[in-house]
Amino acid sequence: METLENLLSHKSIRKYQKRNIESDVLTEILQAGIRGANTGNMQLYSVIVTQDEDKRQALCKLHFGQKMVADAPVVLTICADVNRFHKWCEQRNAEKSYDNFLWFLTATIDATIVTQNICIAAEEKGLGTCYLGTVNYSVPEIAELLQLPEGVIPIACVTMGYPDENPALTDRLPLEGVVHFEKYNQYSSEKINELYAEKENLEESKNFVKINDVENLAQVFTKKRYTKEISVSISKKLIQFLKDQGFLN
Amino acid sequence: METLENLLSHKSIRKYQKRNIESDVLTEILQAGIRGANTGNMQLYSVIVTQDEDKRQALCKLHFGQKMVADAPVVLTICADVNRFHKWCEQRNAEKSYDNFLWFLTATIDATIVTQNICIAAEEKGLGTCYLGTVNYSVPEIAELLQLPEGVIPIACVTMGYPDENPALTDRLPLEGVVHFEKYNQYSSEKINELYAEKENLEESKNFVKINDVENLAQVFTKKRYTKEISVSISKKLIQFLKDQGFLN
Repeated sequence: METLENLLSHKSIRKYQKRNIESDVLTEILQAGIRGANTGNMQLYSVIVTQDEDKRQALCKLHFGQKMVADAPVVLTICADVNRFHKWCEQRNAEKSYDNFLWFLTATIDATIVTQNICIAAEEKGLGTCYLGTVNYSVPEIAELLQLPEGVIPIACVTMGYPDENPALTDRLPLEGVVHFEKYNQYSSEKINELYAEKENLEESKNFVKINDVENLAQVFTKKRYTKEISVSISKKLIQFLKDQGFLN
Repeated sequence: METLENLLSHKSIRKYQKRNIESDVLTEILQAGIRGANTGNMQLYSVIVTQDEDKRQALCKLHFGQKMVADAPVVLTICADVNRFHKWCEQRNAEKSYDNFLWFLTATIDATIVTQNICIAAEEKGLGTCYLGTVNYSVPEIAELLQLPEGVIPIACVTMGYPDENPALTDRLPLEGVVHFEKYNQYSSEKINELYAEKENLEESKNFVKINDVENLAQVFTKKRYTKEISVSISKKLIQFLKDQGFLN
């Protein structure tokens, strides 16, 4: 497929056929993944491939029971990883210098670039993928399950398989709502109303408001999907884990 | 171009022709950017487009004088952004819930997905791009220059233009060096030697060791390119900025 057509037709796929991903296809996808740009060509990331059924069931629990984790033939957990680079440094009489916040952020960005390349390559191969934001909720538990050593932090998780659904494209804000020329243009109240009008008027959104018994779509997010209380509690857990791993220096 | 061919042939481009990017081409690229997956379809990112020459010169300084920032017709600074979503919440009697570390991380990942989609789309259009890791070194200064409000943090920066060079593909570790099946396989000393052998034996690497007057390639990184001292000092600055912005809750 042409690249632009591929990018423009992206849909998250949550239902998969009971069909394995051929190992040469998976290899091709991973190879495309690691060709992405990365800081200093240091490759501060690792990809953990989960195919074993018991492991997928265990991962599924850590992703709050989201069924696609157990159902997808392949689950990838992409990690920020300074461990490998530090091992190399240690063997070369070079000071381990990357267990600090700058490099956590750098490795997070580079791990995400790999992940997105993997997703795009997978779609080209007829596969569907879905990012699981819940990876950031269960970082210590996932690290334990996958036996990640110090310096390796799960950042992104994607399920992957041959699609068994074909959902519609989801909405996006108008481009002018997220792009700014030369400087950030702060949004007026009128502009916010204008930008969010399409989203608020979708039948799906109206239904969310109704079944969640809230006043409007914004409250679906803040009162139901992603509450402040849970966000702050997960944030504390994340900060503590980064501290324990020496990444908050 | 076919998607896989595009991904596999990625090269960072640092020299550009003196030719502007047509505005419809830029729009097409940005549209492909925002089609990428994002958490809860909340689009917690903004893209700042810098084309003005004075602004590019000013940005260039903040990127430690890297010439391509002044030379590229377009510089994009992609930001994690909870400001727009919070403004919407405020207008809808919904609690602002996303100024905490979980959402800084989430928005960082989503901003990077947009950035990588943009780079891939740009390459499809015959353009070259280069990520600038220095964006993370000058976060408060770039935020000030681009007039970013509270809740908006620069995460990734890419220069973009029609290529005026055609560098060779850069090396990568063998795939088995970054991919693990079922669990993380800790690296033995022998494995590290094996994985880094190709990189260490490149003529370019040997030359780096020589001109930097160090013992080996690992020391080029730790003693010259990215020292511990500078990394820790930049980390402190980043952590303080996130604290000031309320993102370390």
